[in-house]
Amino acid sequence: MPSPRVLVLHGPNLNLLGTREPEVYGRDTLDDVNRTLEALAGELGASVICKQSNSEGALIDALHEARTTCAGVVFNPGGYTHTSVALRDAISAIQIPVVEVHLSNVYARESFRHKSLLAPVCLGSIAGFGVDSYRLGLRALLDYLKRQ
Amino acid sequence: MPSPRVLVLHGPNLNLLGTREPEVYGRDTLDDVNRTLEALAGELGASVICKQSNSEGALIDALHEARTTCAGVVFNPGGYTHTSVALRDAISAIQIPVVEVHLSNVYARESFRHKSLLAPVCLGSIAGFGVDSYRLGLRALLDYLKRQ
Amino acid sequence: MPSPRVLVLHGPNLNLLGTREPEVYGRDTLDDVNRTLEALAGELGASVICKQSNSEGALIDALHEARTTCAGVVFNPGGYTHTSVALRDAISAIQIPVVEVHLSNVYARESFRHKSLLAPVCLGSIAGFGVDSYRLGLRALLDYLKRQ
Amino acid sequence: MPSPRVLVLHGPNLNLLGTREPEVYGRDTLDDVNRTLEALAGELGASVICKQSNSEGALIDALHEARTTCAGVVFNPGGYTHTSVALRDAISAIQIPVVEVHLSNVYARESFRHKSLLAPVCLGSIAGFGVDSYRLGLRALLDYLKRQ
Amino acid sequence: MPSPRVLVLHGPNLNLLGTREPEVYGRDTLDDVNRTLEALAGELGASVICKQSNSEGALIDALHEARTTCAGVVFNPGGYTHTSVALRDAISAIQIPVVEVHLSNVYARESFRHKSLLAPVCLGSIAGFGVDSYRLGLRALLDYLKRQ
Amino acid sequence: MPSPRVLVLHGPNLNLLGTREPEVYGRDTLDDVNRTLEALAGELGASVICKQSNSEGALIDALHEARTTCAGVVFNPGGYTHTSVALRDAISAIQIPVVEVHLSNVYARESFRHKSLLAPVCLGSIAGFGVDSYRLGLRALLDYLKRQ
Amino acid sequence: MPSPRVLVLHGPNLNLLGTREPEVYGRDTLDDVNRTLEALAGELGASVICKQSNSEGALIDALHEARTTCAGVVFNPGGYTHTSVALRDAISAIQIPVVEVHLSNVYARESFRHKSLLAPVCLGSIAGFGVDSYRLGLRALLDYLKRQ
Amino acid sequence: MPSPRVLVLHGPNLNLLGTREPEVYGRDTLDDVNRTLEALAGELGASVICKQSNSEGALIDALHEARTTCAGVVFNPGGYTHTSVALRDAISAIQIPVVEVHLSNVYARESFRHKSLLAPVCLGSIAGFGVDSYRLGLRALLDYLKRQ
Amino acid sequence: MPSPRVLVLHGPNLNLLGTREPEVYGRDTLDDVNRTLEALAGELGASVICKQSNSEGALIDALHEARTTCAGVVFNPGGYTHTSVALRDAISAIQIPVVEVHLSNVYARESFRHKSLLAPVCLGSIAGFGVDSYRLGLRALLDYLKRQ
Amino acid sequence: MPSPRVLVLHGPNLNLLGTREPEVYGRDTLDDVNRTLEALAGELGASVICKQSNSEGALIDALHEARTTCAGVVFNPGGYTHTSVALRDAISAIQIPVVEVHLSNVYARESFRHKSLLAPVCLGSIAGFGVDSYRLGLRALLDYLKRQ
Amino acid sequence: MPSPRVLVLHGPNLNLLGTREPEVYGRDTLDDVNRTLEALAGELGASVICKQSNSEGALIDALHEARTTCAGVVFNPGGYTHTSVALRDAISAIQIPVVEVHLSNVYARESFRHKSLLAPVCLGSIAGFGVDSYRLGLRALLDYLKRQ
Amino acid sequence: MPSPRVLVLHGPNLNLLGTREPEVYGRDTLDDVNRTLEALAGELGASVICKQSNSEGALIDALHEARTTCAGVVFNPGGYTHTSVALRDAISAIQIPVVEVHLSNVYARESFRHKSLLAPVCLGSIAGFGVDSYRLGLRALLDYLKRQ
Repeated sequence: MPSPRVLVLHGPNLNLLGTREPEVYGRDTLDDVNRTLEALAGELGASVICKQSNSEGALIDALHEARTTCAGVVFNPGGYTHTSVALRDAISAIQIPVVEVHLSNVYARESFRHKSLLAPVCLGSIAGFGVDSYRLGLRALLDYLKRQ
Repeated sequence: MPSPRVLVLHGPNLNLLGTREPEVYGRDTLDDVNRTLEALAGELGASVICKQSNSEGALIDALHEARTTCAGVVFNPGGYTHTSVALRDAISAIQIPVVEVHLSNVYARESFRHKSLLAPVCLGSIAGFGVDSYRLGLRALLDYLKRQ
Repeated sequence: MPSPRVLVLHGPNLNLLGTREPEVYGRDTLDDVNRTLEALAGELGASVICKQSNSEGALIDALHEARTTCAGVVFNPGGYTHTSVALRDAISAIQIPVVEVHLSNVYARESFRHKSLLAPVCLGSIAGFGVDSYRLGLRALLDYLKRQ
Repeated sequence: MPSPRVLVLHGPNLNLLGTREPEVYGRDTLDDVNRTLEALAGELGASVICKQSNSEGALIDALHEARTTCAGVVFNPGGYTHTSVALRDAISAIQIPVVEVHLSNVYARESFRHKSLLAPVCLGSIAGFGVDSYRLGLRALLDYLKRQ
Repeated sequence: MPSPRVLVLHGPNLNLLGTREPEVYGRDTLDDVNRTLEALAGELGASVICKQSNSEGALIDALHEARTTCAGVVFNPGGYTHTSVALRDAISAIQIPVVEVHLSNVYARESFRHKSLLAPVCLGSIAGFGVDSYRLGLRALLDYLKRQ
Repeated sequence: MPSPRVLVLHGPNLNLLGTREPEVYGRDTLDDVNRTLEALAGELGASVICKQSNSEGALIDALHEARTTCAGVVFNPGGYTHTSVALRDAISAIQIPVVEVHLSNVYARESFRHKSLLAPVCLGSIAGFGVDSYRLGLRALLDYLKRQ
Repeated sequence: MPSPRVLVLHGPNLNLLGTREPEVYGRDTLDDVNRTLEALAGELGASVICKQSNSEGALIDALHEARTTCAGVVFNPGGYTHTSVALRDAISAIQIPVVEVHLSNVYARESFRHKSLLAPVCLGSIAGFGVDSYRLGLRALLDYLKRQ
Repeated sequence: MPSPRVLVLHGPNLNLLGTREPEVYGRDTLDDVNRTLEALAGELGASVICKQSNSEGALIDALHEARTTCAGVVFNPGGYTHTSVALRDAISAIQIPVVEVHLSNVYARESFRHKSLLAPVCLGSIAGFGVDSYRLGLRALLDYLKRQ
Repeated sequence: MPSPRVLVLHGPNLNLLGTREPEVYGRDTLDDVNRTLEALAGELGASVICKQSNSEGALIDALHEARTTCAGVVFNPGGYTHTSVALRDAISAIQIPVVEVHLSNVYARESFRHKSLLAPVCLGSIAGFGVDSYRLGLRALLDYLKRQ
Repeated sequence: MPSPRVLVLHGPNLNLLGTREPEVYGRDTLDDVNRTLEALAGELGASVICKQSNSEGALIDALHEARTTCAGVVFNPGGYTHTSVALRDAISAIQIPVVEVHLSNVYARESFRHKSLLAPVCLGSIAGFGVDSYRLGLRALLDYLKRQ
Repeated sequence: MPSPRVLVLHGPNLNLLGTREPEVYGRDTLDDVNRTLEALAGELGASVICKQSNSEGALIDALHEARTTCAGVVFNPGGYTHTSVALRDAISAIQIPVVEVHLSNVYARESFRHKSLLAPVCLGSIAGFGVDSYRLGLRALLDYLKRQ
Repeated sequence: MPSPRVLVLHGPNLNLLGTREPEVYGRDTLDDVNRTLEALAGELGASVICKQSNSEGALIDALHEARTTCAGVVFNPGGYTHTSVALRDAISAIQIPVVEVHLSNVYARESFRHKSLLAPVCLGSIAGFGVDSYRLGLRALLDYLKRQ
């Protein structure tokens, strides 16, 4: 397998990372996270392309584009996790593996965060490890791609 | 009644039509569908204007615009069918008849697809006939408009 | 395909059509509807046989009989739509396509009308277009049969 | 108003009255009940016609027939009370007043008996007074008819 | 049996009868209702004592008092019907028969009015006949007492 | 005990046995099943009478008739299992033991099949063994009758 | 319009205002609140009459009395907000506008506080602004009255 | 700590103790219970003051009064246990410990008795030991107060 | 405190204000509303900046921007009120006070409008006063800011 | 097929059989049951091995062991029927047929006993025939094995 | 009655008492608790035998053993309170009185702790008084036994 | 930090790994998994101790033991994930970080697997990556421990 390209897709409000409730989400900015992931991808013989949007439609567009340009997606869907059938359909439609990641332990928060509409159509889910969730997600995706 | 203009509005993920699970949704692309509907509209003494967007906001904008420029709407709201109060309010607000169409039989799929937030404010609903759902929807709308 | 025969099956209370709440259901009687459908079937190279019953058991019997004598069914199950597992099993058992039709927009009425036990085993569903729902249903069924 | 005719309609299992759990339902047979109601109707300047069926379809037929032949209905729908949308639609369709009666206090029994699908479209409901429920129901209906 | 005494107990807001939404509840005042019931009781060889309160506690007190002074109760619990476990316990505790009556057809109104906490411990229930509901309730109670 | 007579009652759609989804329900027709049960009854010193109907009312009638002519019932209520309060009341009313049988494992199918309205008033239930469910049900009933 | 009189009605536990959890509800006593509202009413060309009770029945009585003596009500129903059908009926019955106010943001507290039985029959609702909720409610009511 | 004073508060219907279903609630009257508790309080170096009311508002008033005059409360809220947010707020507001007691095992009764709105804001709960529940509750409260 | 700047944010469909169901929402256009709020802000020593969007993503963007440029937000989230976890997270993230306003009394409309996902993270909520809801919201926000 | 070996597995509390509520469960001890089943197995050309445990873990161990040593299992899971996902997974994992049996008619008891987590992964279920349930279960299993 | 022997049974995680969240559960170890209970039993003319297990099966075994060796049980079922039908059946089966005790106020914790499967079959329940819950439970049990 | 020791704890049915549905769970045995984790731990400067049990009680015991002997736990609770409050309490009690791992994507399976009682008290959760879930979980735990 040649060096696979992975889309790292950040959902709503993640542009505020590092400034928003740092005691919960840590002090790393989104740029810091992206740089970390680029470095890890390099170590693991892959590359990443990173995008963020607060718009459900733009996130769907990004997934569609990844369908023919990337080998898989690491996706933090933020608040859309629990409400978006349209994103679920997009994940089903693109037929490349998507790993769902969350910074916080969503199961320890409000009950409406306990149900993910997206998880059933993702390869797997990782939640609760802060920025490490992304790192673990990237690793999980690349390990999976290697085995295909 | 002069030749009525109808908005055919395609919701999220329908841009992938023909490439996404063709055994479910058929091999016609969205362009094929639109051409078929243009032809049928012509036969029935009407015209259509076709739009697609993955964005809930853009779909609301399109409905608003139709309010003063079209006689009615054939709308496949895709995944927003089950989650969008904002689209429901848009349909109520524009006060022209809207026909809800779905390619697949949504009632034979996951339970969260069994409830439409939009159906109660639409003229009627058609689901399960593939691309024919659009054709039937257009016909239903034009028959209705003729009777007004 | 030779000229296909279609069962048009009317469920409970439809014998009162034209006399019951005409402002909701229109002034056409059931005989008017049947004549319209016969004419449309003729245009489309098919024939219809029309039955009505208020009895769940008789409707099951009619579906069973259609199994070997008709190519498909256009079925308005009325109030049994929401309560009859036995009719659902009959539709599954006969293995010919059944199209569910409703005169009114059932989704705009009481909440117990929002759920159809039959829709998941039908080919598709059409609701809200008055007598046109039958016409659209017949057309949808014949288009489907043509493609098989 | 000339002497009004009232349909007394007995639903499923009421043919066993007097033989079925007499400690609950009393020892009067259905014929006894009907004779009592005939006598009361006579006293109140009215007449009754009494029917019983175990079949939902036959009960719907009886309601339809009453539409043009009776001034109102006293109806004990038995077990169909809690499950029949088709009977509800029949009551709505015939547009003459229907009084729902029950021998036992349905609210003191299993929870599935606490909800009546028919009550919302009836004039009123009476439950828990044994055979007296019918007598009270007849009286309530005739008082209502007198006031129209 | 000597002439039995019956408590007629009116719950919250019934003091406004005749002034509150007369198109729904009629133009009779509570005094009119009470006089009608006194007359009917006289005809049927009984007497009534009538009370009204807007206070749940005072209604409980009235039921307690009836325990040793009355043979039964005709009770319109108004809005407390659907919420008061304390009134239910009072009815259970006094061990004389209580008939629940409602002016309107509560089953045709908001869903929170469909469930009565009191009905399961009452002798029976009557709803939907306006002021006649009280008259029927008094009759039902006296017929029941006669049979004991 | 003289040779007991048992009603074997088949509910809706069972007339199609052997022709309907044979990979699920097997290739035996209803006549085959009835002959097998007659033979088994003979072996066990009993006799059976077999009936089938698609009509809820006719099934109630058959149960009523068994009340005075049979010692017990083996009943496959099909789709009415989950929806019929009227059949439940009929089983309660006839006061002879009824054994509920199902061909398929209803608990492994759609969730609306997991709840039986009839089971609570039956002697016991047997599901999942195909035509053997009837044989086991007959045996269970006769063993029970022997012990009375 | 002459100077309108407004009833300010305080429900259960509000007599403890200023002493109960002051970090939540502030240090103003009920007398302080009433004086503030009197002043504001004066500024706005109106007058207020202030009452408090812990008794549901007494609150109903107060609403009834306002029906003929006041132009509207500013009502903080406290814990009865979520449980009292009788208060709801009182608000409906008096046919003068009632504004519901809450000191705390009830939507940020226990889930049983998220549903108001009273809001649907009030003119509008204001919650979360401490004592200012009353001031805003008075202003909203007077603005509304001015427009009538 | 000087001898603490405890309010023993009896809710609705407890005035009938000893006369109401003695096989369930025992033959002790409320006076007997109060005398027993006075004796036990004396033994344990404390005193009690006993009140009963059928009115929710009066119970709230009594709790408010205890706030400055008693060290704690033993409270049997009867039927208000399951419905009163206002009493819950009163318990929260008075900031002295309240022990919830019930004569019967509420968990073995109707399901609406399984949920206590008050328990979450009480110190603890005791149910099922008849009059002993009060004695245990008084002991629990005094042990708690001693440790503060 | 210098003159505070407030974002007035209008959600989906509010661009149609004045043209959409004027009997419900009034005849003021959004421009009229904005001008009124500018005037009121001026009176109260503040300024407003007004935005409207039909897109959830754009509304999130606007809230993010207000985080560093405004002192608080008056927000009418329209149909997103009931469905948007992403907007809720945005309000939490920006850590300036947000007041939720609604033109209509949402509690008197369809049940899916009774629950606000946003209210728990807002300062407070105001609903039902038409355009006055905005005015009251602005006043509430400025009063709150003054006290900080 | 050589003589098949069947595991008869008894779940929690079944060791008390014969001593626990004999009027419900009969007077046979577990040893009596096991001897009966050994005899029946012999008649039917098979053998049984019988185990009982109160421990969920030990029951899982027993099922695992049966995987390679038995041809099928007759299992009375007692109270674990309704709560154990782990036992369900064990039944799925061992891939030999398991027949679920219950002494009592679980559907006529508390509602939490109406749902079996195990039934969907068993071959079939038998309930309500006392010790005969085991005998019928053994017979059902051996008939099934014979047909494989 | 000779000196009764009581089983004190501690469920899962109680072996950690004194080390686990001491600010919640106190600093007494399980041995301390047992010694306290032994002393109290002595004072009250009884004896206790104390057991702890983390295994549901072992707790059932202990209850079974108590059936013939003890007069009653004081049981803290810990986390099994809310999930174990098997323990419930064991309590029903042993037919000696069982008192349920909890250290913490379970009603003030997560909602899944509000429902006890065991309470309905226990004599009574005590929760929220820390180690005193055990002491009160022992006292309640011995008082009850004395009265038998 | 010296080389940390980690407990790898396998719940029910995991002893069958490699033999049970290998197309779902892969062909690696539990020993293979344990060896892989030992190797990975070595690489990352840590050590693991691996245990498996089918018994809820034994799993609780193992967690308790880890409390003083390990720095953290990687736990696959299998079917107990969805049902065990006792395991949840054990995780809370031991106060060392626990990472929940699942082989399969539990969110894509039956709905009772969508809710984890344990996740809210774990550090984080990983599901869907087969044996890699364990590897990722170990890595996540060690990264976390390093940061403390």
